[in-house]
Amino acid sequence: MGDRCKVVIVGDEFMSYFCNTMNLCWFLLPELDNAIRTLHRVVGNAMVDDDRFIIVGNGSTQLFHALLYALSSPDLPEPINVVAAAPFYSSYPEETKFLRSKLYKWAGDANCYDKDEPYIEVVTSPNNPDGSIRGTVVNREGGKAIHDLAYYWPQYAPITSKADHDAMLFTFSKATGHAGTRIGWAIVKDKVIAAKMVKFIEVSSIGVSREAQLRAAKILGVIADDCRNLDLKGENFFEYGRRLMSERWGKLRELGMKSNGVFSLPKYPRGYCKFTGEYTDSNPAFAWLKSNEVLNCENLLRDESKIITRGGPSFGVDSTYTRVSMLSRDVEFELLLERLAAIKGTVNGN
Amino acid sequence: MGDRCKVVIVGDEFMSYFCNTMNLCWFLLPELDNAIRTLHRVVGNAMVDDDRFIIVGNGSTQLFHALLYALSSPDLPEPINVVAAAPFYSSYPEETKFLRSKLYKWAGDANCYDKDEPYIEVVTSPNNPDGSIRGTVVNREGGKAIHDLAYYWPQYAPITSKADHDAMLFTFSKATGHAGTRIGWAIVKDKVIAAKMVKFIEVSSIGVSREAQLRAAKILGVIADDCRNLDLKGENFFEYGRRLMSERWGKLRELGMKSNGVFSLPKYPRGYCKFTGEYTDSNPAFAWLKSNEVLNCENLLRDESKIITRGGPSFGVDSTYTRVSMLSRDVEFELLLERLAAIKGTVNGN
Repeated sequence: MGDRCKVVIVGDEFMSYFCNTMNLCWFLLPELDNAIRTLHRVVGNAMVDDDRFIIVGNGSTQLFHALLYALSSPDLPEPINVVAAAPFYSSYPEETKFLRSKLYKWAGDANCYDKDEPYIEVVTSPNNPDGSIRGTVVNREGGKAIHDLAYYWPQYAPITSKADHDAMLFTFSKATGHAGTRIGWAIVKDKVIAAKMVKFIEVSSIGVSREAQLRAAKILGVIADDCRNLDLKGENFFEYGRRLMSERWGKLRELGMKSNGVFSLPKYPRGYCKFTGEYTDSNPAFAWLKSNEVLNCENLLRDESKIITRGGPSFGVDSTYTRVSMLSRDVEFELLLERLAAIKGTVNGN
Repeated sequence: MGDRCKVVIVGDEFMSYFCNTMNLCWFLLPELDNAIRTLHRVVGNAMVDDDRFIIVGNGSTQLFHALLYALSSPDLPEPINVVAAAPFYSSYPEETKFLRSKLYKWAGDANCYDKDEPYIEVVTSPNNPDGSIRGTVVNREGGKAIHDLAYYWPQYAPITSKADHDAMLFTFSKATGHAGTRIGWAIVKDKVIAAKMVKFIEVSSIGVSREAQLRAAKILGVIADDCRNLDLKGENFFEYGRRLMSERWGKLRELGMKSNGVFSLPKYPRGYCKFTGEYTDSNPAFAWLKSNEVLNCENLLRDESKIITRGGPSFGVDSTYTRVSMLSRDVEFELLLERLAAIKGTVNGN
């Protein structure tokens, strides 16, 4: 994109803590607020009506912590239970547990949750690690939910409807790949929850880098402009990303078929993507590999082929599963395919 | 400084989570590590030998949380006590308490601390709010300390020696005024503590914005270059800042003398500043005002003169004290002086 995504910041810009004292989220750069809402409107993946609050965070990780704080209460006699259906994102348990808060506690797999107590269910959709499209599973009265929609973008999954949950998380790192910028955002319906999240970010880091926000605003803005540009020559960002992901998944599935059942991969239903206007496949950011021949898939891949993956137990399931990144650079991805193909040979003895 | 402090970032730079996988603090930009160490060597305000670890954070606020985590232990039967001598920085109690951690708890004024239990003493020097130079006051065997040296720069205080504590905090916002960038750093002796801090920042925000780090590196680097430049025309950054602060304190003290004892201000000893090579005064970032005539100094200033300050109780002392910022823009500072002068008239009835 050359100069179109370039940011230039001179020495005396952006010195204040404050970005917009008129906004509930006083540390949110108005340009970023605007770029986020515009992009969601263009893509159609989340409801961003003007009455929704946008809260920016140091990555969506900080916003997950902010939501635990906002959805819990010091007035409850016991910490609120935090659950997610296995396989769940491997960082949720640690993020929930590590400060040993009396406000909330990790309570494991939502599929097994049977306590008659207050709870927060974390729903990741498309799911990390397995790419499945998900909703809440506990569905008890008074239950609260955090919807982590980091991967709900057209390069990963068909955009079938505008998500419209009470608290939704997105992140620059998964929307565009800019992980080093550390910009996430929450879309929140309730003003009291939004205000508690702002308080959390104030007390934990007094806001979010304005340089990072400026850059995210610029890049998200350029992407939205291209998506809306009817005269655009070539693909827009999401079409480009979807084509790359689709090619990678095609190669991986082809390898899987040749492997005679050594590994298996999840299957995803096609869906009508309102963004592209056609039926599309899911092309998740991770391949959720199941070994049909050994008990520990992570160890097999590491020991036999020097492929680093993250095993099932990190995600609350057994070790026949492991998570493989589909987002490496081309040269690494080709190497991954080569090494996976070689394992097939080893295991089958040919 | 014009273009010298300008940063330019193109669209595909800085995309990875990782800044330096060879470093314990894998999310610290090597340019920032280098700029921080160089600046401390030039100013002489902190020991930064190569065996010290530099940990970057989303402001020193996040590093304060990281230190509470790193200095506490899940193996202790009770939360560790966190104390600071009053008047202490008003955010420490809330930062310590708000997540209701079982790892640490706020235990108030260090001057009154008499428990025979593990503790962490937070020492801010020069102190916020009162500008005093401080050391630990509890001094019990096994006690741990966090030294917050945010204001230990030549514009605020004479640099009398290189600080050399186990865990020291600094922040870009107070060194140069760039509060919106959200960059703080810790200088830590012990590798285990440093590693726990890195873990904290990983779990709470997966690192620190690379754009923010790049900008801090650039600006701190330019300041260090000028300080070392024997051919520099005009003042370096700290000489400039010290002159401005000294002029403001001169005006405020003059007003104080004319006020016939309505208000009083702390007095600070002159010290030999090794950076400037001369005896200099302290010119703190805040004026710690004591009212000699009314019980609530914050209310007096707000109600009579629309001067917003932060009252003594926020800092653990009585309401005859209040904290006034000395870092506003020139036009606001002149207005502050005018309004303070008018109060004198009101109170004295002339």
